[in-house]
Amino acid sequence: MDNSLFFTNNSPSCTIPNKIDKYEYIRLDKPKPGSFVAELVLNRPKKLNSMTDDFFNEFNKVWDEIQSDESIRVVVVWGEGRMFTAGLDLVSIGPLIQGDSEKSQAVQNVELFKMVRRWQSAFDKINKCSKPVIAAIHGYCIGGGVDLACACDIRLCTKDAKFSIKETKLAIVADLGTLQRVAKICGTGFAREMAFTGEDIDSENAKRCRLVNHVYADQATLMKEARDMAERISKNSALVAQSTKLILNHADDHKIDEGLLRVALHNTAFLKSDDLNEAAASFMEKRAAIFHNNL
Amino acid sequence: MDNSLFFTNNSPSCTIPNKIDKYEYIRLDKPKPGSFVAELVLNRPKKLNSMTDDFFNEFNKVWDEIQSDESIRVVVVWGEGRMFTAGLDLVSIGPLIQGDSEKSQAVQNVELFKMVRRWQSAFDKINKCSKPVIAAIHGYCIGGGVDLACACDIRLCTKDAKFSIKETKLAIVADLGTLQRVAKICGTGFAREMAFTGEDIDSENAKRCRLVNHVYADQATLMKEARDMAERISKNSALVAQSTKLILNHADDHKIDEGLLRVALHNTAFLKSDDLNEAAASFMEKRAAIFHNNL
Amino acid sequence: MDNSLFFTNNSPSCTIPNKIDKYEYIRLDKPKPGSFVAELVLNRPKKLNSMTDDFFNEFNKVWDEIQSDESIRVVVVWGEGRMFTAGLDLVSIGPLIQGDSEKSQAVQNVELFKMVRRWQSAFDKINKCSKPVIAAIHGYCIGGGVDLACACDIRLCTKDAKFSIKETKLAIVADLGTLQRVAKICGTGFAREMAFTGEDIDSENAKRCRLVNHVYADQATLMKEARDMAERISKNSALVAQSTKLILNHADDHKIDEGLLRVALHNTAFLKSDDLNEAAASFMEKRAAIFHNNL
Amino acid sequence: MDNSLFFTNNSPSCTIPNKIDKYEYIRLDKPKPGSFVAELVLNRPKKLNSMTDDFFNEFNKVWDEIQSDESIRVVVVWGEGRMFTAGLDLVSIGPLIQGDSEKSQAVQNVELFKMVRRWQSAFDKINKCSKPVIAAIHGYCIGGGVDLACACDIRLCTKDAKFSIKETKLAIVADLGTLQRVAKICGTGFAREMAFTGEDIDSENAKRCRLVNHVYADQATLMKEARDMAERISKNSALVAQSTKLILNHADDHKIDEGLLRVALHNTAFLKSDDLNEAAASFMEKRAAIFHNNL
Amino acid sequence: MDNSLFFTNNSPSCTIPNKIDKYEYIRLDKPKPGSFVAELVLNRPKKLNSMTDDFFNEFNKVWDEIQSDESIRVVVVWGEGRMFTAGLDLVSIGPLIQGDSEKSQAVQNVELFKMVRRWQSAFDKINKCSKPVIAAIHGYCIGGGVDLACACDIRLCTKDAKFSIKETKLAIVADLGTLQRVAKICGTGFAREMAFTGEDIDSENAKRCRLVNHVYADQATLMKEARDMAERISKNSALVAQSTKLILNHADDHKIDEGLLRVALHNTAFLKSDDLNEAAASFMEKRAAIFHNNL
Amino acid sequence: MDNSLFFTNNSPSCTIPNKIDKYEYIRLDKPKPGSFVAELVLNRPKKLNSMTDDFFNEFNKVWDEIQSDESIRVVVVWGEGRMFTAGLDLVSIGPLIQGDSEKSQAVQNVELFKMVRRWQSAFDKINKCSKPVIAAIHGYCIGGGVDLACACDIRLCTKDAKFSIKETKLAIVADLGTLQRVAKICGTGFAREMAFTGEDIDSENAKRCRLVNHVYADQATLMKEARDMAERISKNSALVAQSTKLILNHADDHKIDEGLLRVALHNTAFLKSDDLNEAAASFMEKRAAIFHNNL
Repeated sequence: MDNSLFFTNNSPSCTIPNKIDKYEYIRLDKPKPGSFVAELVLNRPKKLNSMTDDFFNEFNKVWDEIQSDESIRVVVVWGEGRMFTAGLDLVSIGPLIQGDSEKSQAVQNVELFKMVRRWQSAFDKINKCSKPVIAAIHGYCIGGGVDLACACDIRLCTKDAKFSIKETKLAIVADLGTLQRVAKICGTGFAREMAFTGEDIDSENAKRCRLVNHVYADQATLMKEARDMAERISKNSALVAQSTKLILNHADDHKIDEGLLRVALHNTAFLKSDDLNEAAASFMEKRAAIFHNNL
Repeated sequence: MDNSLFFTNNSPSCTIPNKIDKYEYIRLDKPKPGSFVAELVLNRPKKLNSMTDDFFNEFNKVWDEIQSDESIRVVVVWGEGRMFTAGLDLVSIGPLIQGDSEKSQAVQNVELFKMVRRWQSAFDKINKCSKPVIAAIHGYCIGGGVDLACACDIRLCTKDAKFSIKETKLAIVADLGTLQRVAKICGTGFAREMAFTGEDIDSENAKRCRLVNHVYADQATLMKEARDMAERISKNSALVAQSTKLILNHADDHKIDEGLLRVALHNTAFLKSDDLNEAAASFMEKRAAIFHNNL
Repeated sequence: MDNSLFFTNNSPSCTIPNKIDKYEYIRLDKPKPGSFVAELVLNRPKKLNSMTDDFFNEFNKVWDEIQSDESIRVVVVWGEGRMFTAGLDLVSIGPLIQGDSEKSQAVQNVELFKMVRRWQSAFDKINKCSKPVIAAIHGYCIGGGVDLACACDIRLCTKDAKFSIKETKLAIVADLGTLQRVAKICGTGFAREMAFTGEDIDSENAKRCRLVNHVYADQATLMKEARDMAERISKNSALVAQSTKLILNHADDHKIDEGLLRVALHNTAFLKSDDLNEAAASFMEKRAAIFHNNL
Repeated sequence: MDNSLFFTNNSPSCTIPNKIDKYEYIRLDKPKPGSFVAELVLNRPKKLNSMTDDFFNEFNKVWDEIQSDESIRVVVVWGEGRMFTAGLDLVSIGPLIQGDSEKSQAVQNVELFKMVRRWQSAFDKINKCSKPVIAAIHGYCIGGGVDLACACDIRLCTKDAKFSIKETKLAIVADLGTLQRVAKICGTGFAREMAFTGEDIDSENAKRCRLVNHVYADQATLMKEARDMAERISKNSALVAQSTKLILNHADDHKIDEGLLRVALHNTAFLKSDDLNEAAASFMEKRAAIFHNNL
Repeated sequence: MDNSLFFTNNSPSCTIPNKIDKYEYIRLDKPKPGSFVAELVLNRPKKLNSMTDDFFNEFNKVWDEIQSDESIRVVVVWGEGRMFTAGLDLVSIGPLIQGDSEKSQAVQNVELFKMVRRWQSAFDKINKCSKPVIAAIHGYCIGGGVDLACACDIRLCTKDAKFSIKETKLAIVADLGTLQRVAKICGTGFAREMAFTGEDIDSENAKRCRLVNHVYADQATLMKEARDMAERISKNSALVAQSTKLILNHADDHKIDEGLLRVALHNTAFLKSDDLNEAAASFMEKRAAIFHNNL
Repeated sequence: MDNSLFFTNNSPSCTIPNKIDKYEYIRLDKPKPGSFVAELVLNRPKKLNSMTDDFFNEFNKVWDEIQSDESIRVVVVWGEGRMFTAGLDLVSIGPLIQGDSEKSQAVQNVELFKMVRRWQSAFDKINKCSKPVIAAIHGYCIGGGVDLACACDIRLCTKDAKFSIKETKLAIVADLGTLQRVAKICGTGFAREMAFTGEDIDSENAKRCRLVNHVYADQATLMKEARDMAERISKNSALVAQSTKLILNHADDHKIDEGLLRVALHNTAFLKSDDLNEAAASFMEKRAAIFHNNL
């Protein structure tokens, strides 16, 4: 598959060949007419949306599709069935971790390393994707589910939601992004409690430590509010919303001075758009702006 | 004006020539006798303290004055009239953004870039200034107002305050510091919701996500509490309060190990002051310390 | 003593010679049979657990002991007597800061610098230690106490706890880690209020700004809950809990991409342990895992 | 094409779709039987191997092929005809730079930016590719040719070779990697002379400032020596040679301490290979090692 | 004077008030008609161009003038009289280093620190200035002279030139930039030999280790060649030459990936200039380009 | 042994317990009366000074001794017998690399990782040691010998010296510092040729690419010149020479702006020494300075 995963110091970015014709573990609901909001559904409800190697391949692929589809401006991610996700499918994944004992240790480990990088790539693409992504979480969000959710921009959940860095209890260091991202979201005190205990955090604590932005009574309300927020975001200039995500990502990893230079150059290069004119015109005419610009 | 703004990879730092005799868009109230607290007032209430190019020039200049005035140890920033600020004055600023279409694109863009860097400099000086700065916000704090507030050290507000990264709705990537600073204050989840929606955050949410430290019932209470906190800070050693801000700024942008070395060197060089002796003496004598040291 | 402290750009790491036979200012309670939880007690209650130069030497030494003792997997830090700690013992420490005026200024300052680095080392070892550390704080946690607490992983406190960066009032820039760590825990707004005022933060505000994870009614409850959390953490795989702390520490100081590469390499090298097998087996057998692995 | 190029803060990495069936501007000579050395030939000699947009597309694509082809372990890059390359083909590229004036400036600039990133990607892939790459340069190496050569690992040239950062004379800031890499190769003094003057550097100066490792009398000797060095490198363990390039790339961009940790983890994970055993066995048996391992 | 020097973590950048009417220690020869090359002369030949506090004030000021003077595109720095410079004027500077013993140590040290930062600023402005700077060095270049020369872009010298980091012999750690820059120019092996011995390096070794680009027989030849190189550089597009210096400065301090993004944004924003058109036209018309653009 | 080696993201720094009474693989010749120059001799000539695990333990220990011994100001490292060193002793080290196959892979790898970190520590201490270190190399300097030499400050060699990154040929990625340091010394072009080929570099090429500062005819001349340079360095102020090494180390890993701030703080804290006065006095009195100051 993607041989280059082994040989880079940069972010893992996996290219999946075209053999995936349609998705089995996920479902991409394209925007309805008049809308720019797509929905990405974890779609293996009988297995509690647990994650297999094929799931990660599909997930890698779908974000390339989302990035390049100009009809999509905002994405809502949610899970079909009883819960958001139960995390890794240990039955399916166990043998992959164990490897082929007939090969030398180096070769086994190259394969293990590439697999971890490929899985990291699947979730990291949520963050690298320029389009705002909202996670709408109901029920359990376990292990790999927290890695997935932390890579999204905004997390919303139901009152009965529960989050856990379950990897700890399984004698695995969580390696798909949670440990890199959770302290930036929750502060380092809560992050360490979650990571060392591996225990459930309920929605009240999740809200208090800001793991989620808002908590809603039930899944119906959650989905309504998540879709509503997504629609409102999608009404803003796509060029600007996507540039803003890019600049926010940059700010996460750079000094303030570097960020100021970055955004000044960015606006110098890309400010003068039709959208800017439409925003000014609609402001003067006291009407809603309609941004046609696609990137 | 300041030609060097184009040519630096560092923080934008703009030097405004002496042509500004007195301020028109702002007002600097020097400390009253016995006090070391200055107040910087956004002072264009009829236009809702909206920001023009001249405003940014004055703002650049006033912080040089604040930094070098030894009678000032702490600053409170607030807005005259109905609100803190409505942000950029689009009518006045629109043509500046559009530029002079008779010039080549490179020259237009050099001018645009220098303007953005000059405006960034105006707010960045709040942060670079060694003196603690408290923003006291009532009513709306819109667009550039959030950039300004985020560059302050401490934010306090009234119950009716509302904050929005309005630039998003105007098809502009917020470029005066908000996107670089807001996640460090609020966590990245709330920051992204604010930035992608461009919608109002009320004081309750602002407190919950820690955009503000405290919320007060009305402007009178807000100003009383802001001034009181400023007075209490100004009673501490000026050398130490200002060094502390410097070290906190450093910590924002450096690894912990680097910060530990930095502060150890700092104290080795600057610890043995009259203030240290006065603090020890007053502690033994169980009286309030009076720090005469000015920097 | 440790001459190398002067000559490094890295973290201060002080090696204390073997002259310390037993501890006087602290007490290390080794794990009871069947437990892996040690308790490190600030043990100078008559002097409110205030900190002398000898305290820092003992503290440097005890963390070397904790790191190398395989019977210890988690540590709870608490204070004997009326409070957690009153911070630096100014009477004892004042002359050390003043130095020997007969020496040249450079030599005095080399000695002062080495002392500050040695003290920094004492608290930094809490963070560098791979074992999760919980601070259980009752009553006052003043000055150096906040530096100590911020270096721990998780902070719990009683309802009557109070925190202050008291150094500011003593005309000292807090230099034992607080200023480097507090904004990462509390956000920069609260951190600056605490640092500039030097005033007490009560437990309610400490919880709101996430300086502490949880607040308990009294010391008895606090200790019970802290020990309980420690026991639960210690039941997880020691290899994984300690690796997780290492990866979280790395994430605090690195870009997300660097962190993803780091954890992928880490798991490739160290995943295939007995603990992994035991976790899988116990999961299948629906029983509690028992991890024998020590590092 | 590759929409994601606009939206990343990372290295530009362009994926070219499969529409390129065979190469027109370049030629990839696969290894001959018994060899692991491929040759990548700039193959537009009538136009002095000057670079068009299609050239960059092919160049992007060929490095994906090189990376994933296990029969290739080392690459030699050279130019067909009178010279290595005359750099950008201004006639073909001029209109692309000018853009479509009917579009808004933002859209024109997005297209320009993506094009520059795509071209950067083409040369950056030489460096990101794990396989050692030797540039064998005869005659002129102009403008984009220097960007290309600087991205290679080792540069060899003929006595009559001449190098110039010609972009400067064409009123273009060299933007395909030269300015980022040349000071690391030549030291900053020579780099600046080359960049500011845009003038030719002859082979003697190129050797003196280490832009090239060795100078040979004529192209025949150059090619013989380049191929010979490539063959010798390809006889070493492919896993180790490629890991070494990865670690050297990492070292270019990281502190020494970070690099030491990186290589220690790398070897812990990937040391125990068949190649290690073969190296040891052949050393004992005093024979040449034969490494079968492919990555 | 400039109070802000104490309070920044960034590059020292000193603003000197307008009290300096004309220069006494230096001389700025503006470009002659038809030329864009200025000459900055160290002009205290009776004292071997040694450096006093007033010298540094003038030096700080002259670079502001050079940066903002559009008639200047390139600068040559040289010394009047027997040598380039003998470095610091110890007689004049000794008392400033000793300080006023009646003040507290902290206040003395604040003054010492500000002075060092002001002197650093004087030489750092050579590097921060966007205009290419050539140092033409004859005879001795001692102590502060090496700091000065290392901040220039290109160093040329006479056969009899000698360089020494003399501070080491004077029991001073060289603190005006040499130690930060010399290894980037010379490699760390030579840099350490120079720094630890404090001994003279002759022109042959200086050329070998690339401290200088070229060596000329005598001062007349040196000046002719330096001016000639400066004229040739000044014939290139000023926008591009200055942007190139900016990008090279950025590359010195950033990872390659960051630099590639930086230059791609820079060219997107600033490429489309009159100079680009003039370069293309002159290329087609096979004539020398004449660039009118000033920044 | 040192358990903390596994758990740090910082430089590997290994503490060896006191069980080593005298050295077997090395010899530390303390300074002769009147001298401050120690000599560290690789002292296993019958085995070509090849390196065993015990060698690394002794090497770790001796640098702690060197750092803390105030009678030592400069160190010369050389090899007894026919050559500097043949690198790793494969016979002795092979089994250590292979590990104990009865343990789980994670435990084997933890042991391997700790061993590599301990060996890295041994050579990294040369660099972290504040005292200037000169490597005097005769004959072969192979594999680990290059790691050792690159960690020294200055490298001198005989005409017959040969250097090779032999690890490559042994199917090992060189992991004791060479790959992190060699490009900073030699430039990246030569570094990659050496690393990919694993072949010998002779003294002429080593001088040309600046791997060594100077080449001498034979070992007698080499030792005379190395000792002479060491004596001259040791006559300078020890405080300043050691501070200079610290600042140069810092400069290797930091931006120029950071370095300028660092050295300004350093001199503010540590400038006013007896050595400064002695240097000034001896300068006025035109006599050699005698620096008594020890750190």
